[in-house]
Amino acid sequence: MNEQVSPLLLGGRWQSSLEMVGSFRATDPETGNAVGSAFPISGAADVEAALTAAGAVAAELAATSPERIAAFLEAYADAIDADADTLAALAHIETALPAPTRLRGNELPRTSNQLRQAAQAVRGHTWSHPVIDTAAGLRSHLAPLSKPVLVLGPNNFPFAFNAVAGSDFASAIAARNPVVAKAHPLHPATSRRLAQLAHLALLDSGLPAAAVQMLYHFDNAMGLKLAGDARLGAIGFTGSRAGGLALKAAAERAGVLFYGEMSSVNPVFLLPGALAERGEAIAQEFFASCTLGSGQFCTNPGVVVVPRGADGDAFVAAAAAHFAAAAPMTLFSRAGVDHLAQGIAALREAGAELLAGGCAGEGGFRYAPTLLSVEGETFLARPRALQAEVFGPASLLVRADGPADMARIAGAFEGNLTGTLYRAADGSDDAAWQAIAPVLRARVGRLINGKMPTGVAVSPAQHHGGPFPSTGHPGFTSVGMPAAIRRFAALHSYDAVPDALLPMELRDANPRGIARMVDGHWRDAGPEVRA
Amino acid sequence: MNEQVSPLLLGGRWQSSLEMVGSFRATDPETGNAVGSAFPISGAADVEAALTAAGAVAAELAATSPERIAAFLEAYADAIDADADTLAALAHIETALPAPTRLRGNELPRTSNQLRQAAQAVRGHTWSHPVIDTAAGLRSHLAPLSKPVLVLGPNNFPFAFNAVAGSDFASAIAARNPVVAKAHPLHPATSRRLAQLAHLALLDSGLPAAAVQMLYHFDNAMGLKLAGDARLGAIGFTGSRAGGLALKAAAERAGVLFYGEMSSVNPVFLLPGALAERGEAIAQEFFASCTLGSGQFCTNPGVVVVPRGADGDAFVAAAAAHFAAAAPMTLFSRAGVDHLAQGIAALREAGAELLAGGCAGEGGFRYAPTLLSVEGETFLARPRALQAEVFGPASLLVRADGPADMARIAGAFEGNLTGTLYRAADGSDDAAWQAIAPVLRARVGRLINGKMPTGVAVSPAQHHGGPFPSTGHPGFTSVGMPAAIRRFAALHSYDAVPDALLPMELRDANPRGIARMVDGHWRDAGPEVRA
Repeated sequence: MNEQVSPLLLGGRWQSSLEMVGSFRATDPETGNAVGSAFPISGAADVEAALTAAGAVAAELAATSPERIAAFLEAYADAIDADADTLAALAHIETALPAPTRLRGNELPRTSNQLRQAAQAVRGHTWSHPVIDTAAGLRSHLAPLSKPVLVLGPNNFPFAFNAVAGSDFASAIAARNPVVAKAHPLHPATSRRLAQLAHLALLDSGLPAAAVQMLYHFDNAMGLKLAGDARLGAIGFTGSRAGGLALKAAAERAGVLFYGEMSSVNPVFLLPGALAERGEAIAQEFFASCTLGSGQFCTNPGVVVVPRGADGDAFVAAAAAHFAAAAPMTLFSRAGVDHLAQGIAALREAGAELLAGGCAGEGGFRYAPTLLSVEGETFLARPRALQAEVFGPASLLVRADGPADMARIAGAFEGNLTGTLYRAADGSDDAAWQAIAPVLRARVGRLINGKMPTGVAVSPAQHHGGPFPSTGHPGFTSVGMPAAIRRFAALHSYDAVPDALLPMELRDANPRGIARMVDGHWRDAGPEVRA
Repeated sequence: MNEQVSPLLLGGRWQSSLEMVGSFRATDPETGNAVGSAFPISGAADVEAALTAAGAVAAELAATSPERIAAFLEAYADAIDADADTLAALAHIETALPAPTRLRGNELPRTSNQLRQAAQAVRGHTWSHPVIDTAAGLRSHLAPLSKPVLVLGPNNFPFAFNAVAGSDFASAIAARNPVVAKAHPLHPATSRRLAQLAHLALLDSGLPAAAVQMLYHFDNAMGLKLAGDARLGAIGFTGSRAGGLALKAAAERAGVLFYGEMSSVNPVFLLPGALAERGEAIAQEFFASCTLGSGQFCTNPGVVVVPRGADGDAFVAAAAAHFAAAAPMTLFSRAGVDHLAQGIAALREAGAELLAGGCAGEGGFRYAPTLLSVEGETFLARPRALQAEVFGPASLLVRADGPADMARIAGAFEGNLTGTLYRAADGSDDAAWQAIAPVLRARVGRLINGKMPTGVAVSPAQHHGGPFPSTGHPGFTSVGMPAAIRRFAALHSYDAVPDALLPMELRDANPRGIARMVDGHWRDAGPEVRA
């Protein structure tokens, strides 16, 4: 190929693809036109080189001090903040997400904050769970996998879930594992800019230069081959269910840990009292949440269960009016528009009725916000088809008779990231809550009261995850420090190992006051093990 | 069939198999003769009934109070202790393990103690990791999977890893999930007795009767079908690598969590100073560990790396003398003897030399303790073949040149449960330790100093697990409360849920003083959340 193609971050430096099997460019979703420079599609030689280089520095990185890891994460966070305007402009071109509000004002500071929270967890040793049993002579903690982690980022968060800057990245590095990042091909220039900042911060902080590498693209077969390579320790994936399940199978066959966020419709249950109390307001909240980021959120409220009757009908009418009044919204890609149209067609085929939207817009990648409705009985008869995730500004209302019927519907859901109930402020819905919440609780990661599921705070008590198939393991969250870090860790115990040969955080002396479980009690006050 | 066949613990009561596709009896390993009554081999109807019944009580069990769960575990532990003589006698007949020392004196009290430690973790809420972020309005903890857990027990611990009494069982119940246990067919009468005690304790404590069920046997195809049934939440498995990998693949395809302990050779590195200091004593320790329980331990020292030179030669001679002087040892089954003979033949084919043993004994299921040796270069050339687990009283010595060579050999090991180094008391081996230990550390769950790997204390700091393929996930232990319980848990977060609708342990008031992470700090002193 003649055009100038971007180099890769490979083996600790920016270099040309070793085996370019093709190239691609980003598109501006507003126009549908290609924008920016060309990026390589990697062949086997790039993948092999990345894996080899990552494996070669795994032991060195595992032995790196927490201080140095934290310093890297913080330097990188600072660099992102300092480059915020450029990053937001790049990401806006590639994603059409609003630059001032969403990208610059919200997602970017969230991303640097997340890196800083990871640094804080590293400095404070809050992720590694040191446990000391003085009588048995046993000490344990979570430690690096000592193998590379492959991170595959999604299309919908160019910063906060970026393969080279997001939560999976921060978590894997915080646990002192090298990262092989695969950028999402819908925002390559944004990813390149982030990788440049990461690389500079890496060099400044003295970590092994190959601790962070980035490829832009490879085909699905190459992805599955890489996922199934036993030299990997783990995979962090955010994306589609079909892609996730294929990667999961490949990884797990090879003993590679797979943490994937794959699909979720985030059911919302509107209890009768809440509807009577504030149905109009909830309709507004629902529309805003469903169309935030053009609906391209993993926590998008995809299914809303609405009681039958006058209050429910009023809610439906209000929601439908919001959807009908909105202009078509810009999605990330032509494929996104096509998938959305196919998903809506499939819902209609399964019995859903179109209330608003249901058509593509003019120019670029646009689709009208779409609201559908289906009877509860139909939903219960075809639960699989009617809870398929439809990625974009679309939602399905399910009409139900009352709490018992709503509980039955709750029981038909697969594993989801979130489940929401809206209840009356006066407590009049609490019996309905008690009937529905336990059923929903077992099927979701985060149970929400009275607000829409979009918006995922980076908090130690967060759970951005859930039962299969929303993710591959219901015990782990991909957002929230320090818990997210634990995904990329191995448990290490030491049996009768003398104090001087133990890792610092497991020694008797605890001058930094690390919180540890000593002989059955959490202690973070005293510096010493008192046997 | 005409003979009287044992009933199953199915759907909350003892009942005849619904679809018996065959029957079997235990054998006395000392004689090779069948003993005891006949037990059913279950067809699909039994499996379906067990899964349905377990699923039907999952929600009720998840909502059961910790107090009641703990009471069951303690009542069951008491019943086991009270029945110790009978249980030990039954297990001795079926396994030939020494009744007074091993079964009655060691494994049985360990088993009831483990159930009590699980109860303690339940009462103290030490497994559920409550995290509260008052500013974000988020609260999270580990909670039941709310789905049945399938436990498949191994042949080698009729009590401590029994599917209806061991650590997987105790952990799954402690996390309030129903258990479908599959007994090991080599000790069915022992398992029946345990299940009877569990069932009575269950009824006494008021848990759902179908919270514990037990089948005795089914064929491999049925096992794979069950493992891949998405109605299951998780599987706890201890057994062979081939069986484990097949179950793992079936489970993970269906989104079922798989926790399996599959194989380990537990490499032991004898550093030069230790050999010079106490080579004879280590040879004695090694022989005792390798032949404990006729070598049928997952933590058996299967590979011992010995420096070349006079001290190493003396160690080898002393060890070989111990092995040569010992009588053939009784294994659990004819198949065990055959596998051992095949494994030894494969090691010899790969270049190992026989130093002692290598032949079956007369009568029953007997095989001579067997010691082999191989040059380090050969080991490094054929690492897969020469680190295959050989289950029984057999071990392979690997001769190495010095610390650098030993570190290379350490780097050739797959994931193992344990890795051991023997070092000189005077510190003269510490440079060698620093060269070898980090390499070994990354490949094992428990790193041991100066003692053989058999013996796995039930401790909060224990790690009985390790990197693939020793287990399926390096972050979890199958022994040690409260950590083992966390395998069978889902993370639940609550977002903006009012205090009264939260689970007790996440409410502001904390009258029981549960240890919780509140706003970044572990607190177990004060009763209240102080925002």
